[in-house]
Formats: sequence, structure tokens, C-alpha cells
Amino acid sequence: MVGREESAILLYTVNYFDPKRISMAELNIIYVGKKPTMNYVLAIVTQFNNNVEQITIKARGKSISKAVDIAEITKHKFIKELKYQSIKLDTEVLEGERGQSNVSSIEILLTR
Amino acid sequence: MVGREESAILLYTVNYFDPKRISMAELNIIYVGKKPTMNYVLAIVTQFNNNVEQITIKARGKSISKAVDIAEITKHKFIKELKYQSIKLDTEVLEGERGQSNVSSIEILLTR
Repeated sequence: MVGREESAILLYTVNYFDPKRISMAELNIIYVGKKPTMNYVLAIVTQFNNNVEQITIKARGKSISKAVDIAEITKHKFIKELKYQSIKLDTEVLEGERGQSNVSSIEILLTR
Repeated sequence: MVGREESAILLYTVNYFDPKRISMAELNIIYVGKKPTMNYVLAIVTQFNNNVEQITIKARGKSISKAVDIAEITKHKFIKELKYQSIKLDTEVLEGERGQSNVSSIEILLTR
């Protein structure tokens, strides 16, 4: 199975070389991890410039703040007409070494 | 001027002693700061139990993740019928010692 980080990069790469192959909305997902904020911003801007119509930013736990930064920077510095189509909060149950734990999550759906 | 932390405590105290004095919606604001997550959750639960109808959780920067935790814990553990009436993201300009800086913010409007 491909990890979250790798799948984001994979999506970015596929999209970069052949934007037409990205057609289903569920593919346009950016998972926020430990990379610098601007990496995610530039991945999103590149996708919108390749005529992708909507992108979902997903984050969990402490990355939620970074997800909001990514959305706001993309909107205010790069794509002024960007809209927040929906913002969803949820709780996910993770299986860890010490049993189950709950972690908050956010999904920000961006459209232009 | 009263700081953010102090005003949240002040609101909580006033509300505790005389809930009828809290009538304007704009008073029901919880500013998320450095206190433990459960402090904010219990302040919100107490207010709803005192017949407050809506509460806004506001946070900036790294506290945004904590704001989402507070909302999700309040909803899933304490007040099942809670609804997210609106979730707004924004960017605020702060004046610091080294000039202006931008910080992301979130506003989560809770209603029951």
C-alpha cells in the first residue's frame, strides 16, 4: 500500500505529465503531512493551473493548522477566485500500539 | 483592555452566576489559547447547559488544531445534537516586533 506522503507525490507526478488522466474528483486529494507548507501550496496551484476543478485538502491532528495555512496562502497569494466549497470536521479512530486513539480531522474542498 | 484568556474566563464566570445577562450572540465567543483542551470543552458544555443557544470557537495559528479538537470532543462526548452552523477560515495581520506577519484563523459556530 502506498503511504499518504507517497500518494500525494504520485498524484502530483501523474497530474504533471498528463492532466487529462485525472478525472474523478476523489483523486484530487492533498494529504497534509510533515513537508513544508509551501510544497503543498505549490502542488495545489500547479494542479489548478492544469485545469483540475476541485481539490480537497485533508489533515489530521496537529497538521490541521497547516492545512488551514495551505488553504489561506493558496487563496490570498496565488488564486484569488478560490472558494471554500465545504469545510468538514470529523474524528477518526486510529489503531496504535497502545490501543485505539481518537484524532480530529479536517477536509477543505477548494474550487475555482 | 482585557486579554483573550481573561475575557474567556470572565465570560464563563458571568455566565455561571447569571446566564440571563448573556443575551447578545457576539458575547458567546471562546478564544482558544494555551490552556488544556478540556478546560475549553467544559466551559462550552457549561454554557450550553445554561441555555446559551450558540457559541463561536475562535483560534489562530497553531491553536487551530486545538479548536477542532474542542469542537469534536464537545460534539461526540457531551452534546450529541450539536451542529456546526458555519466554519470560517481567514487570515489576520498581526503587528509584531519584526513588522507585520500573517496568521491563519478559524471560527467554528456551534448551535444545538
